[in-house]
Amino acid sequence: MPSRPTKELEIFPNPTPARDYHIHMEIPEFTCLCPKTGQPDFATLILDYIPDKRCIELKSLKLYIWSYRNENAFHEAVTNRIVDDLTAALKPRYLRLTAKFFVRGGIFTNIIVEHRKSGWKPLPLVELGKFEGQSTTRG
Amino acid sequence: MPSRPTKELEIFPNPTPARDYHIHMEIPEFTCLCPKTGQPDFATLILDYIPDKRCIELKSLKLYIWSYRNENAFHEAVTNRIVDDLTAALKPRYLRLTAKFFVRGGIFTNIIVEHRKSGWKPLPLVELGKFEGQSTTRG
Amino acid sequence: MPSRPTKELEIFPNPTPARDYHIHMEIPEFTCLCPKTGQPDFATLILDYIPDKRCIELKSLKLYIWSYRNENAFHEAVTNRIVDDLTAALKPRYLRLTAKFFVRGGIFTNIIVEHRKSGWKPLPLVELGKFEGQSTTRG
Amino acid sequence: MPSRPTKELEIFPNPTPARDYHIHMEIPEFTCLCPKTGQPDFATLILDYIPDKRCIELKSLKLYIWSYRNENAFHEAVTNRIVDDLTAALKPRYLRLTAKFFVRGGIFTNIIVEHRKSGWKPLPLVELGKFEGQSTTRG
Amino acid sequence: MPSRPTKELEIFPNPTPARDYHIHMEIPEFTCLCPKTGQPDFATLILDYIPDKRCIELKSLKLYIWSYRNENAFHEAVTNRIVDDLTAALKPRYLRLTAKFFVRGGIFTNIIVEHRKSGWKPLPLVELGKFEGQSTTRG
Amino acid sequence: MPSRPTKELEIFPNPTPARDYHIHMEIPEFTCLCPKTGQPDFATLILDYIPDKRCIELKSLKLYIWSYRNENAFHEAVTNRIVDDLTAALKPRYLRLTAKFFVRGGIFTNIIVEHRKSGWKPLPLVELGKFEGQSTTRG
Amino acid sequence: MPSRPTKELEIFPNPTPARDYHIHMEIPEFTCLCPKTGQPDFATLILDYIPDKRCIELKSLKLYIWSYRNENAFHEAVTNRIVDDLTAALKPRYLRLTAKFFVRGGIFTNIIVEHRKSGWKPLPLVELGKFEGQSTTRG
Amino acid sequence: MPSRPTKELEIFPNPTPARDYHIHMEIPEFTCLCPKTGQPDFATLILDYIPDKRCIELKSLKLYIWSYRNENAFHEAVTNRIVDDLTAALKPRYLRLTAKFFVRGGIFTNIIVEHRKSGWKPLPLVELGKFEGQSTTRG
Amino acid sequence: MPSRPTKELEIFPNPTPARDYHIHMEIPEFTCLCPKTGQPDFATLILDYIPDKRCIELKSLKLYIWSYRNENAFHEAVTNRIVDDLTAALKPRYLRLTAKFFVRGGIFTNIIVEHRKSGWKPLPLVELGKFEGQSTTRG
Amino acid sequence: MPSRPTKELEIFPNPTPARDYHIHMEIPEFTCLCPKTGQPDFATLILDYIPDKRCIELKSLKLYIWSYRNENAFHEAVTNRIVDDLTAALKPRYLRLTAKFFVRGGIFTNIIVEHRKSGWKPLPLVELGKFEGQSTTRG
Ligand SMILES: [Ca+2]
Ligand SMILES: [Ca+2]
Ligand SMILES: [Ca+2]
Ligand SMILES: [Ca+2]
Ligand SMILES: [Ca+2]
Ligand SMILES: [Ca+2]
Ligand SMILES: [Ca+2]
Ligand SMILES: [Ca+2]
Ligand SMILES: [Ca+2]
Ligand SMILES: [Ca+2]
Ligand SMILES: [Ca+2]
Ligand SMILES: [Ca+2]
Ligand SMILES: [Ca+2]
Ligand SMILES: [Ca+2]
Ligand SMILES: [Ca+2]
Ligand SMILES: [Ca+2]
Repeated sequence: MPSRPTKELEIFPNPTPARDYHIHMEIPEFTCLCPKTGQPDFATLILDYIPDKRCIELKSLKLYIWSYRNENAFHEAVTNRIVDDLTAALKPRYLRLTAKFFVRGGIFTNIIVEHRKSGWKPLPLVELGKFEGQSTTRG
Repeated sequence: MPSRPTKELEIFPNPTPARDYHIHMEIPEFTCLCPKTGQPDFATLILDYIPDKRCIELKSLKLYIWSYRNENAFHEAVTNRIVDDLTAALKPRYLRLTAKFFVRGGIFTNIIVEHRKSGWKPLPLVELGKFEGQSTTRG
Repeated sequence: MPSRPTKELEIFPNPTPARDYHIHMEIPEFTCLCPKTGQPDFATLILDYIPDKRCIELKSLKLYIWSYRNENAFHEAVTNRIVDDLTAALKPRYLRLTAKFFVRGGIFTNIIVEHRKSGWKPLPLVELGKFEGQSTTRG
Repeated sequence: MPSRPTKELEIFPNPTPARDYHIHMEIPEFTCLCPKTGQPDFATLILDYIPDKRCIELKSLKLYIWSYRNENAFHEAVTNRIVDDLTAALKPRYLRLTAKFFVRGGIFTNIIVEHRKSGWKPLPLVELGKFEGQSTTRG
Repeated sequence: MPSRPTKELEIFPNPTPARDYHIHMEIPEFTCLCPKTGQPDFATLILDYIPDKRCIELKSLKLYIWSYRNENAFHEAVTNRIVDDLTAALKPRYLRLTAKFFVRGGIFTNIIVEHRKSGWKPLPLVELGKFEGQSTTRG
Repeated sequence: MPSRPTKELEIFPNPTPARDYHIHMEIPEFTCLCPKTGQPDFATLILDYIPDKRCIELKSLKLYIWSYRNENAFHEAVTNRIVDDLTAALKPRYLRLTAKFFVRGGIFTNIIVEHRKSGWKPLPLVELGKFEGQSTTRG
Repeated sequence: MPSRPTKELEIFPNPTPARDYHIHMEIPEFTCLCPKTGQPDFATLILDYIPDKRCIELKSLKLYIWSYRNENAFHEAVTNRIVDDLTAALKPRYLRLTAKFFVRGGIFTNIIVEHRKSGWKPLPLVELGKFEGQSTTRG
Repeated sequence: MPSRPTKELEIFPNPTPARDYHIHMEIPEFTCLCPKTGQPDFATLILDYIPDKRCIELKSLKLYIWSYRNENAFHEAVTNRIVDDLTAALKPRYLRLTAKFFVRGGIFTNIIVEHRKSGWKPLPLVELGKFEGQSTTRG
Repeated sequence: MPSRPTKELEIFPNPTPARDYHIHMEIPEFTCLCPKTGQPDFATLILDYIPDKRCIELKSLKLYIWSYRNENAFHEAVTNRIVDDLTAALKPRYLRLTAKFFVRGGIFTNIIVEHRKSGWKPLPLVELGKFEGQSTTRG
Repeated sequence: MPSRPTKELEIFPNPTPARDYHIHMEIPEFTCLCPKTGQPDFATLILDYIPDKRCIELKSLKLYIWSYRNENAFHEAVTNRIVDDLTAALKPRYLRLTAKFFVRGGIFTNIIVEHRKSGWKPLPLVELGKFEGQSTTRG
């Protein structure tokens, strides 16, 4: 896999396709260009998915994100496009992308897009008490 | 679009109307006048919506918010009015506005108003484990 | 409305009775006396309600809260009484009061009481991704 | 009520038995002894309950917690036992105990046990937007 | 004191002029207009001062802050001007103003200006261990 | 039980099998080796389970986690394997493992895997108001 | 010591007068009345002192704070008066009081007053790296 | 001023050169390329300065930051270069730049560089109690 | 070293006595008895020291802390006594103990005591920009 | 530079040796073995230094940290040794290492060690108001 930006997404076989399980990835380094002004836009992307037969390669995901660096893209359209591309490559049972854009005009915008595989139904959630994370060290 | 306050709301076509997706915007610069005392009131607005055929222009939203600067408005009424205006302009599948007013009389007031398009039903939620955000840098 | 403590609650007409919407108020200045020891007790009150035909006046709510300053009151009983009084004045579709008392005997106590209007049913919730608030400024 | 540790739990009549309401207590001072090593264990206890005809006296609860100070107790067993004792004394509609033990062997353990009164059903929850607490003062 | 915006600042005599002591005020409701674009700007102001013979009236300070609502003002200039006005009215031993402006152009700006009375010297600081604030209630 | 890393998991009898209750453990010291690069990987593991007849020994769990220190393991595969091993040893009613891996390639990855005992159904959740934890001391 | 509000302050002998050491107390339950409006004011008090021959009784401090409940008091004056009273009773080497008042008129006010014993000099501070507190439990 | 990336920095006259005062800016959108790998790097920049006769234009600063988008730059060198450029343009009394780079190789790097005008000395600091910021709204 | 509570403190030779360096330990499990009421008191202890020829054994410190479990002790006296005992055993260049007691009577008390070796002087501090910690994982 | 653990440290020339500037690195992946029990220990390392003629290669630092994975090391000794190695390789003007070890025996230990180049003196600090970091996005 070359270390160049690319729209091609590398996948590997899901090691446990028998189970519905959840992969959560945080990708803080998205940047593209605003089609109106040509100025750079920035976002943190949050990817949640339930794989079917395929998982996404972490390095390939990084190169794919990089590929937007010199492209013009509107917030709403680019978030939907990334979902389309990931869905085409992964054919996941479920996928959700949250794009948290840096402030523009004093307003913070976030776009949340999901894909559900036709016919797939989530297991009824087992709801447990919630616990919040803390640092591993103290002081 | 002129850079003057205006009640007119500019929209653009939703790039992916085939999907229910979620747009979340935080607008920290709302101010109006209290009809009783004439003194300024302030709020942070949180807008959540699921677009149908239209999306709101970020800059137009900013000018619309600005238009309340010299108007008298009660907390409950103005939050409902903004929902009415946004709903008329966007005809969204779903829209929710949270207005978090600055403290008055030692009491903090928040108003939450929503609109649901007639006949529209949200997809059953796919509930996933929650993860909390952290800063992109450290130190 | 006189600026004296009072159990009388002033209301005003709900400007948008056609809609179920949510009013959230935080009231950090509740104090009363412990019936056993005569010593002061303190709490922060959180009021959530869905108005029907009436809304509560912010200043009147403040004077009502003040009226407990020299009264004896147990935690459980006083939280229920405030819900009764607010319900009688507002006849709301829904009302919930959370009283967070300051520590006594090393134990923190919170009481949560709600009222539901007979025959009223909440709309099925539209569940969206959650976002957490941050400060409006930086640094 | 003597100020000595005791397994006896004092109760008082619920002032509003007509309503399902929620009492939340945080008790940071639980300690007992590890049956294997004899060394002290520590935990913060979180008690949530919906009373039926009885409520727990705050001071009595404190003395009851104290009574474990010199007793041997495993994490899982003692959390279940406290629920049994509180349930026997309070006969609540619902009761949940969360025991958050201090770290042992580099691992943090929390035990969550609940009791439901036979035949009792919770009201369907009225779900509202959530708000997070903040300090009453600033600076 | 009329409830209208005004540049006039009301003061009252310092009750303890024999002592150097510190007054810290947080004023979250500053707004003015940008001289370049005419658009509203917003800031939270933090005022720290050591009074000499005079203290500032809280309500008067509020009306003074209000007086900038319809005025054009650059960030650096207006922060310096407020310090000049407060210094003229209070003739304090020491005064510091921190203006935290809302984001513009994706950049957050804060301006910190101080005034020291000629000949006045701060007492050498007694440095103690620091403690951080927490909420008064729990849960 | 020897203090050596081992894949063998020690269990003890659940003291209260009559009840569905929840055990939550946080294990910050997971490390293994990346099969591609041979470099160390790190994660914090969060284990939630509802025991049936067996509970996991805390010390044994620690030794089991240690056993991955010199093994090659992919993120997705190892999280699923740990769930398989714990499930085989505990035969729990429900078990969920959340593995929060340290950043790689600028991307943060978390894997969440669960097991449900065939035929077991969670009790309908009693949803209560949530309260957030705070430190036991102040300052 | 009677459990009634009192301006009398009970002290006990400092067990280690040979050393300069620091006592830090947080007192969240201060309330008095505004001399202008008669309405209640609230504050959290932070007391820091280096004792000389005397220390303050915790319960007596609580009763002293209670004694302001029905008294008129301005923010600046009452903070200075409490320092005068504590100084008269304790004759400390050093004492600092921070009063954090609840918001009034949308402005948060804090008053910080200190007393230094004539001729006393603090030891030069040994400055160490700082560490921040975290909760004792996790989850 | 054109809306194109540029190394040219626009300044404006300091409105209050008679005073030493502090300007603090947070610039979250720095990105450049790694000279070794060609991959993008990201940082948040924190700029603190005490102006002499000149201040930096906010928009110009944004365009200057943008100018690094397609340039190769090492962390240490680029932080020093930006300080050189800002110092040349502003000739400030004091300037400090903190560059907080996004994680690389699992390690977080921050570079802090300062410039002091020859012969300039900071006023001895007036040290006051510190207060921490909180959100303007609640809930 | 026996696993029983003991006032005896085990030490080991400082591996680098040529250097002044800082050891910071957080000990959340201190408990003793109140001499007035017989009831348990609790505290988190923070120990900071600069060793001379000796360091404290972690396990021995734990057993020493345990030894207070059944002893009567006032807050001020016990904090001073622990400093005396640690100083006698370690003969450190510098030692500071911060005891953060759990709330009593609604008041939070912290005691900070230090010891300085006669003739020892701290190196002048090299003050660097501060950075705050964050969690190692995200989500 | 091979991707194998190594005690050899690669350096590169400081691009701006004319200036004292500060490099801060956070390294969350330190692990070694306890010489007493053979069990793994974990720490987050914080490295602060002011370079002279040399800077440390980020990748080399990572491989150096990795080299402790299978070595026995006491907390105090290993922190001092890493400072010795870094000092030998970098010959820095100033270097400080903070090692935050994961909890052992319920106690959290942090070790802070520094090196100062003979004859080097830090510039007198320019103290500015502090500002705290926040996330780049909102929601
Ligand atoms: Ca969060
Ligand atoms: Ca988290
Ligand atoms: Ca721990
Ligand atoms: Ca919260
Ligand atoms: Ca919030
Ligand atoms: Ca604060
Ligand atoms: Ca912003
Ligand atoms: Ca704290
Ligand atoms: Ca990272
Ligand atoms: Ca909370
Ligand atoms: Ca929590
Ligand atoms: Ca902190
Ligand atoms: Ca802070
Ligand atoms: Ca408390
Ligand atoms: Ca930070
Ligand atoms: Ca945002």
